[in-house]
Amino acid sequence: MQPPSDPLGEDRVGAFVPGPRATMAATGTGPLDGLTLAVKDLFDVAGALTTFGNPDWARTHPPAPATAPVVAALLEAGARLVGKTKTVELAYGLTGENIWHGTPLNPRAPDRFPGGSSCGSAAAVAAGLVDLALGSDTGGSVRIPASYCGLFGIRPSHGAISLAGACPLAPSLDTPGWFTRSAALLATVGEVVLPPATGGVGGPLLRVGEAWVNAAPAVAAALTPALERLQGEFGPALQVQLAPEGIPTLHAHFRAVQAQEAWAALGGWIAATGPRFGPGVAERFAAARDIAPQTAAAGRAFRRTLQARIGPLLAGGAMLVYPTSPCPAPRRDAQAGEQEAVRQATLSVTAIAGLCGLPEVTLPVASVDGAPVGLSLVAGPGRDRALLAVARHVAGLLGLD
Amino acid sequence: MQPPSDPLGEDRVGAFVPGPRATMAATGTGPLDGLTLAVKDLFDVAGALTTFGNPDWARTHPPAPATAPVVAALLEAGARLVGKTKTVELAYGLTGENIWHGTPLNPRAPDRFPGGSSCGSAAAVAAGLVDLALGSDTGGSVRIPASYCGLFGIRPSHGAISLAGACPLAPSLDTPGWFTRSAALLATVGEVVLPPATGGVGGPLLRVGEAWVNAAPAVAAALTPALERLQGEFGPALQVQLAPEGIPTLHAHFRAVQAQEAWAALGGWIAATGPRFGPGVAERFAAARDIAPQTAAAGRAFRRTLQARIGPLLAGGAMLVYPTSPCPAPRRDAQAGEQEAVRQATLSVTAIAGLCGLPEVTLPVASVDGAPVGLSLVAGPGRDRALLAVARHVAGLLGLD
Repeated sequence: MQPPSDPLGEDRVGAFVPGPRATMAATGTGPLDGLTLAVKDLFDVAGALTTFGNPDWARTHPPAPATAPVVAALLEAGARLVGKTKTVELAYGLTGENIWHGTPLNPRAPDRFPGGSSCGSAAAVAAGLVDLALGSDTGGSVRIPASYCGLFGIRPSHGAISLAGACPLAPSLDTPGWFTRSAALLATVGEVVLPPATGGVGGPLLRVGEAWVNAAPAVAAALTPALERLQGEFGPALQVQLAPEGIPTLHAHFRAVQAQEAWAALGGWIAATGPRFGPGVAERFAAARDIAPQTAAAGRAFRRTLQARIGPLLAGGAMLVYPTSPCPAPRRDAQAGEQEAVRQATLSVTAIAGLCGLPEVTLPVASVDGAPVGLSLVAGPGRDRALLAVARHVAGLLGLD
Repeated sequence: MQPPSDPLGEDRVGAFVPGPRATMAATGTGPLDGLTLAVKDLFDVAGALTTFGNPDWARTHPPAPATAPVVAALLEAGARLVGKTKTVELAYGLTGENIWHGTPLNPRAPDRFPGGSSCGSAAAVAAGLVDLALGSDTGGSVRIPASYCGLFGIRPSHGAISLAGACPLAPSLDTPGWFTRSAALLATVGEVVLPPATGGVGGPLLRVGEAWVNAAPAVAAALTPALERLQGEFGPALQVQLAPEGIPTLHAHFRAVQAQEAWAALGGWIAATGPRFGPGVAERFAAARDIAPQTAAAGRAFRRTLQARIGPLLAGGAMLVYPTSPCPAPRRDAQAGEQEAVRQATLSVTAIAGLCGLPEVTLPVASVDGAPVGLSLVAGPGRDRALLAVARHVAGLLGLD
């Protein structure tokens, strides 16, 4: 789990955006001293182009005037930037495919997608090219590539960390996030960028029934020993049902909220520029443009309902536990129909933390057919630091660090 | 649901202890002005004998030197004491049987037990003999007779109301409690005797799977329309499993904790006096005497586990919802084996709030075979006033007031 860091070596997995590397020295010293950092190419680094994964975006935007504060905070804590990493175009996709820059390899399963949209950041960390990498997560774009590439990853509480200097996709859902090969470093980064925790995390474990049923049987089976070990620590997981409406409802409402915001955030540029998009991306933006206002309103209403339902359950320190992704990374030759089915099943689960703004940590606890699968722990909003401490402890119990 | 109050009339259901009535005028004015009160005969009223349901207890104890503070508070708020009501001997039983004083009638189902141990208080309120009555609850002794007699009843948070001047059964489980025919009065009494709420109650509803499965199918079916109406108000009930160990475990551990404490509290008097007991009571105290220390210790450990498990779930205002009793009141001619089966199934559910010290309100929402059955709402510890406010609102929704 701890390959040597090799920031100056060849980018053998295609993690970085093509062209000259954007690099920056550390600007201070702190808990990240001596560590190498890569940053998803939707965060600004002063003087560099932010491509957002799309050549027309790059062509129509000037170099960044300033460095995004979250990146600056990492540099001030001692990290050294060694490059910017590939993203799915405009961050709107979960496989990690990018036909313009090339899809990064999944270092842990080379015949499979790396996951996205933070594909390059995940690939860079998994390949040992850097110690840590910054990504962003709207509908799973950190959690899913972390699960697919066998990494620790976090989607923090919504709003806990500034997204100034980052390209938006769906602002009420967007968060930064980061990848590491150890839970200890995952928590250390949190100490640098997160506000103080608003509460503790101590259990009980709530086994979200829908998410386990939604998972492929092989994934649920592969994650069960880790769940059992967690139960030895936190007591028996209590089965809980969060979406009596049915788990596809989560996907439908999440998709509607995301789509309306994505068009509001990016539709003006798309309409004015007429950019070329790779497969899937164009279709998703077309659907976003056409989302009915009442469909999005229903999605927002459902989000409030879900928040009112889940928030109280986590107010005392309980944790949700479920498979991060319902299946391992799809193979790179998977048909479009299969990819869409995976996307819908995946968003149905990632929507839980997404719609509710909850912090979620994924731990690389198992593999299926040789491909990694992660187990997620989710806490109440604002409890990120406490959740990271629990994740670090759990990683020790599971022998992951 | 609102028969006329008839405090001076004939005690046609045998609710009061035999002999001269212990009565007291109101000592102040307040929200209970003009209301009549009965008190279970394990609370002291100055100058009166406290029989604790057993003639040998009465014979070996002097008249009470002072009035229990909780009774005094009700009198100060304007209520008038019209008598003391029958209790199961030493409060150790759930049917309401008392061979010495006579078992009260269940006014709502005369061929069935009234429920116990606060049998006389429930019968007095259900028959309209008083407006409100004080009882006590260790393992269901308010909740069960309220369910059996079609009343509103509350078991408050453990420790929220003083039990000074009340005979003990199992002090870490004992609470006072009260019965009314309206949710409004149930809440008004709470305003008189409860401390301020430590938090709110607003949902979501957590449908405790085990308790619904444990209930007789006819009971679950009868309560379902009320649950559906609640879901219209609080959103869909989330299915939750609280006892992965199996619901009989709850009974076993509750029984062990209660038994050890009951012998500690009352064994000295029993050993010194050799009192006569009615059927069931003698056997329960014999078993209490013989409980193995390690069995009781395991019970106490399980209580802590259950508290750590449930407490966090309720910290944000969620409510548990389940059938108060798994079945309607047993018929008075039920065999001992059937009574014991009912007792075990009942304690498995009442143990949830009992072991965790949680406030539980039961609402008289339905009947099965002409006999009442209650639906319980349970909140986090200290949230009693908020729970009573919710119960009052819910009673309005259900047309119960």
